[in-house]
Amino acid sequence: MIISVVGLGVIGGSYVQALHGLGHEVYGIDTDKETLYQAKKDGYIIEGYVDGAEIVSKSDMTIICLYPSLVLDFIKNHTFKKGSIVTDVVGIKSYFLEKALDIIDPDVEYISGHPMAGREKKGYAYASKQVFLGANYIVIEHQKNNQEKIQQMCDFVSQLGFKSVKIMSPYAHDEIISFTSQLPHMIAVALMNSDDQKYETGKYIGDSFRDLTRIANINADLWSELFLNNKDYLLKSMESFEKQFDILKKSLLNEDDKMLKELFRESSKRRENLE
Amino acid sequence: MIISVVGLGVIGGSYVQALHGLGHEVYGIDTDKETLYQAKKDGYIIEGYVDGAEIVSKSDMTIICLYPSLVLDFIKNHTFKKGSIVTDVVGIKSYFLEKALDIIDPDVEYISGHPMAGREKKGYAYASKQVFLGANYIVIEHQKNNQEKIQQMCDFVSQLGFKSVKIMSPYAHDEIISFTSQLPHMIAVALMNSDDQKYETGKYIGDSFRDLTRIANINADLWSELFLNNKDYLLKSMESFEKQFDILKKSLLNEDDKMLKELFRESSKRRENLE
Repeated sequence: MIISVVGLGVIGGSYVQALHGLGHEVYGIDTDKETLYQAKKDGYIIEGYVDGAEIVSKSDMTIICLYPSLVLDFIKNHTFKKGSIVTDVVGIKSYFLEKALDIIDPDVEYISGHPMAGREKKGYAYASKQVFLGANYIVIEHQKNNQEKIQQMCDFVSQLGFKSVKIMSPYAHDEIISFTSQLPHMIAVALMNSDDQKYETGKYIGDSFRDLTRIANINADLWSELFLNNKDYLLKSMESFEKQFDILKKSLLNEDDKMLKELFRESSKRRENLE
Repeated sequence: MIISVVGLGVIGGSYVQALHGLGHEVYGIDTDKETLYQAKKDGYIIEGYVDGAEIVSKSDMTIICLYPSLVLDFIKNHTFKKGSIVTDVVGIKSYFLEKALDIIDPDVEYISGHPMAGREKKGYAYASKQVFLGANYIVIEHQKNNQEKIQQMCDFVSQLGFKSVKIMSPYAHDEIISFTSQLPHMIAVALMNSDDQKYETGKYIGDSFRDLTRIANINADLWSELFLNNKDYLLKSMESFEKQFDILKKSLLNEDDKMLKELFRESSKRRENLE
């Protein structure tokens, strides 16, 4: 296949790496010429383009790895090959997909996707195909999708190293993601910001604090957009969490040793069965 | 020095490994004969004892790596060498140290300690001196401690690979630890238990959820004891967290994009400056 990857940041860069050696013709599109130069030098793309109008019109698959609003701009300003698959890596789907389907040529197979892999660091320099290995991928199916193309998409991402590939509606996606991805980010931010800074905190932490706050270093523009466009599900997930946290707090307050242990055994069992 | 390590679990086992090659005479005490056999076979201890009364009475340092209540039992049932250092690895200090000082021979230098390193897994098989490398260590100083001995303790743990060694009162320790260690555990448990299990969660997670719930697999007996004996500080830390979480929730509810971004920039800055 001829494949164009749009946006060679940490995710797009990982895509071109993961595609290397799989027998495809891979091209890169990025506004940063230095990045295109580097990706070509690394041997991951045959050629790089700043706009890419021509290569996109010939591509069998276009993987757009841009911020949600920029994906829509890219779709608006480009003509894709008829019957080709166009996909994205946007973190929320219902709101976004509706807009994307409104503007894309109906003869193009738009299959939204979510690789559940990322890095805190931004940019091509931090890209690595390793992030996909063993990770989860969600294929978003909408009413007009062709079943064969959906299957093709599933097979394609499996080749990239993802361990689990699941097909979901945009609504189901946004519901579960509000819990598994958005809520952890909100928690990490709140934990980091609740430090009263009375002590030199960094000298008194272990791996638990490090792990729970890693994602408190958060891309403010991207995540506020993702959160606000998934407000209802996210609020629901936040409330479920608050409820559990409150049960723990009350058990502690009442010195209810039995209840605390029960809650810890439950969380341990759930965590052990998670994967 | 002659050093006895009591309890060759994941922490005690890591101690004997980290002590290897530093020129000390290291002995192990454990109720499990298999573990003693293994540690001796691995070359980390010269000899292993189930009770260890005799070796403890000759040791210049005794490192007790047992659960809080068992540390007190061990102190009660053993006679230590006069002037020798006796230390522990208990996760809370004010309550515990008071009890320990009540029962230990005043001619023994009791210096409580907290290696901020651990593993979710229990037992000698999971021990590794790697957990100490780059980790934080807190030396707990009480009113009767000899300053030279405190300094000796600091130098000793530095040799084991700890990056930062700080001296603190038991009260300060319990206050900061309620935030950096106990609160993250409460959060992880609440997050794991707030899953409504509508979907097969494990298929829709990325590293953020994995990292935030790793410690939800928690030793129920140990941690409920640690939490209940540090109730006041922990409740305060939980409330500070709730307050920040609520600010995030209200910003989302009010679609206050500006406020959300401000909170995210603050948490990012704090996380970057953490270590």
